[in-house]
Amino acid sequence: MLKEIQGGVCAAKGFTANGVHCGIRKNKTKRDLALIVSETQASAAAVYTQNLVKGAPLTVTKNNIANGKASAVICNSGNANTCNANGIEIAEKMCELLAKELGIDPTDVVVASTGVIGQPLDITPIANGIPALVKGLGAHSDLACEGIMTTDTRPKEIAFEFTVGGKTCHIGGIAKGSGMIHPNMATMLVFVTTDCAISSNMLAKALSADVKDSFNMISIDGDTSTNDMVSVLANGMAGNEEINSEGVDFDEFCKALNAVTVYLCRQIAADGEGATKLLECKVCGGKDESAAKTVAKSVICSSLFKAAMFGADANWGRVLCAIGYSGADVDVQKVGVSFRSKKGEITVCDSGAGVEFSEEKAKEILLEKEIEILITLGDGNATATAWGCDLTYDYVKINGDYRT
Amino acid sequence: MLKEIQGGVCAAKGFTANGVHCGIRKNKTKRDLALIVSETQASAAAVYTQNLVKGAPLTVTKNNIANGKASAVICNSGNANTCNANGIEIAEKMCELLAKELGIDPTDVVVASTGVIGQPLDITPIANGIPALVKGLGAHSDLACEGIMTTDTRPKEIAFEFTVGGKTCHIGGIAKGSGMIHPNMATMLVFVTTDCAISSNMLAKALSADVKDSFNMISIDGDTSTNDMVSVLANGMAGNEEINSEGVDFDEFCKALNAVTVYLCRQIAADGEGATKLLECKVCGGKDESAAKTVAKSVICSSLFKAAMFGADANWGRVLCAIGYSGADVDVQKVGVSFRSKKGEITVCDSGAGVEFSEEKAKEILLEKEIEILITLGDGNATATAWGCDLTYDYVKINGDYRT
Repeated sequence: MLKEIQGGVCAAKGFTANGVHCGIRKNKTKRDLALIVSETQASAAAVYTQNLVKGAPLTVTKNNIANGKASAVICNSGNANTCNANGIEIAEKMCELLAKELGIDPTDVVVASTGVIGQPLDITPIANGIPALVKGLGAHSDLACEGIMTTDTRPKEIAFEFTVGGKTCHIGGIAKGSGMIHPNMATMLVFVTTDCAISSNMLAKALSADVKDSFNMISIDGDTSTNDMVSVLANGMAGNEEINSEGVDFDEFCKALNAVTVYLCRQIAADGEGATKLLECKVCGGKDESAAKTVAKSVICSSLFKAAMFGADANWGRVLCAIGYSGADVDVQKVGVSFRSKKGEITVCDSGAGVEFSEEKAKEILLEKEIEILITLGDGNATATAWGCDLTYDYVKINGDYRT
Repeated sequence: MLKEIQGGVCAAKGFTANGVHCGIRKNKTKRDLALIVSETQASAAAVYTQNLVKGAPLTVTKNNIANGKASAVICNSGNANTCNANGIEIAEKMCELLAKELGIDPTDVVVASTGVIGQPLDITPIANGIPALVKGLGAHSDLACEGIMTTDTRPKEIAFEFTVGGKTCHIGGIAKGSGMIHPNMATMLVFVTTDCAISSNMLAKALSADVKDSFNMISIDGDTSTNDMVSVLANGMAGNEEINSEGVDFDEFCKALNAVTVYLCRQIAADGEGATKLLECKVCGGKDESAAKTVAKSVICSSLFKAAMFGADANWGRVLCAIGYSGADVDVQKVGVSFRSKKGEITVCDSGAGVEFSEEKAKEILLEKEIEILITLGDGNATATAWGCDLTYDYVKINGDYRT
């Protein structure tokens, strides 16, 4: 039983957060340094970008949580601290300065950065900002959320209450999506906190399994950032018996985690650069999970299809085309395609060929802000969902015109 | 010794061509039916889209030239004859009607279509148009080229003279690029003719090898059409001793073929939907050819990088990012990146990190219409080149707004 609640990353017991402007960004109204702290050392797990070019903070975080423990998260926006000669040094310094202020061990810190790459990150504003950042700690998930935003047009925050072994637990998260910062690339950062008691190993297992069906199924533009990271801290303050193995309790935790991650996925996709629509591609009837996922992602990634959705154009041919070149093992003669939104559902393709449909009705459905693309493969029982957004003038503007 | 000449697909001896408006398209000023004919039966080879969804004409062509022989090419625009129940029947009918008019065997016809998919293609306008199409045959490569265009903004035509075994040979080609037709997808069609004598087997070998480094290295938007085809007819009328094996003569032929294909590749990329710039990504120092090609294509395909080029923004971070997620085996610490155009060359990244450069000079270089992105991997001797274009407002407009 999941119940949506307020509080974001501070919904779970023992977690406080804050966000300040420390001076990395020129705009003084924009918070650029965020902090999340657990009262007690927590189980920690994280997954990182698969890009070979990796931000220095990711390397430091990986080392710090190698023991499966952490109690704070610090993250700056405005500079990704990536492709800099002294990146590791600066990321370690961030941990040291924060640890000193909090009275914890520097290796108990998860550190992240987002923004420009290839430009040295000055430690001075961060060093100057940390005292106020720590002093202001409270139920300020919203401020932390602001502190990690780049060109996101809205904050992304959620929390749920759930039950494990008769104890009420809480889980919440904040995310920043595919915002882009001069002059470089987008980053997806997600920080999740929970008071559920779970071992580091089981937390890592839950997170790894989850991202395969959540964050790894989002595409805004096919570009994988150098700084992507999803991390979870679980401090056990809910008082449930620690989850140490698979079973009912673990399943409950995974469900709650998935509710947080899927919500944030949808938020990130809907707030893709320049996006006017959330696209959710649901594939069923796949031969296996891999085929279903490959098809869902191929459709969500197709520039042609995304541009068509911007124009509310029901051209199922582009869906079929993207399925055809996806590389998935499918029989195109069996493919069916429908579009659905809160205005209704319309079938546009059956058995690999077009069916007659009302263009007017299709347009009405596709003019909505959330569109489902339903694909049946007729090859088996596997399903998959991928999230994305339409391709718009503003995507080009944000990414092409920034410096002109 | 290659010499550029006039004449397109009619530059080679014994080839004539024509293009007419037969009525598939509503716009009467737009030719929609094209024909290329060889006086004598020619060696024929073709390569086809790897999309699982394949246009019916491709299936018919594949059968027709299974014996390595053909003497005519017919192609309509305005309807791709794909995903239709009677597609094969219609494509075969096109061959039959043309063959009857020309007095040749229907299986000696290469047939192609480009345009809308999923809408039945009416044979009537084609049947009515064929007599005039045949009657008007002459040195009209330009008219055939017009007949295959969709939203291409300019015709793509080239020819070269070369020498094989002391005999002067000619080779020429026409192409249509990433134009898009309501309501569906882009198609790349390329027709090459030559009077060089070469066996069907060696022609197929030359073409297969060539497309790996030419047409397979173009990307406009990452979408692979259902109807892509590249075909070559070689009628032997130059009188050289037929090329039956590898050797000097075969090499000369391959060079000439490559001159045609690379020219057309650059033309197709430069005329990508909405494009304002041709991007040519040249990778050297790859561990192997696969790594070099993977890197070149990943950069050319990156929406973020393409949007940056539209904005003449030298953000090398996006190049590094695309290299990092390409999947190629590279050491990112060794990567170097420069931008070059006729205004000069500027190095922006060395050993995986940014170098100081003049933003002003970079802007001057990137404001040109043809940009080279030079990448050194420092891992070996393999090289690769990929072609693409920038991502612009007009791409979104062409593909999103067509029906709105």
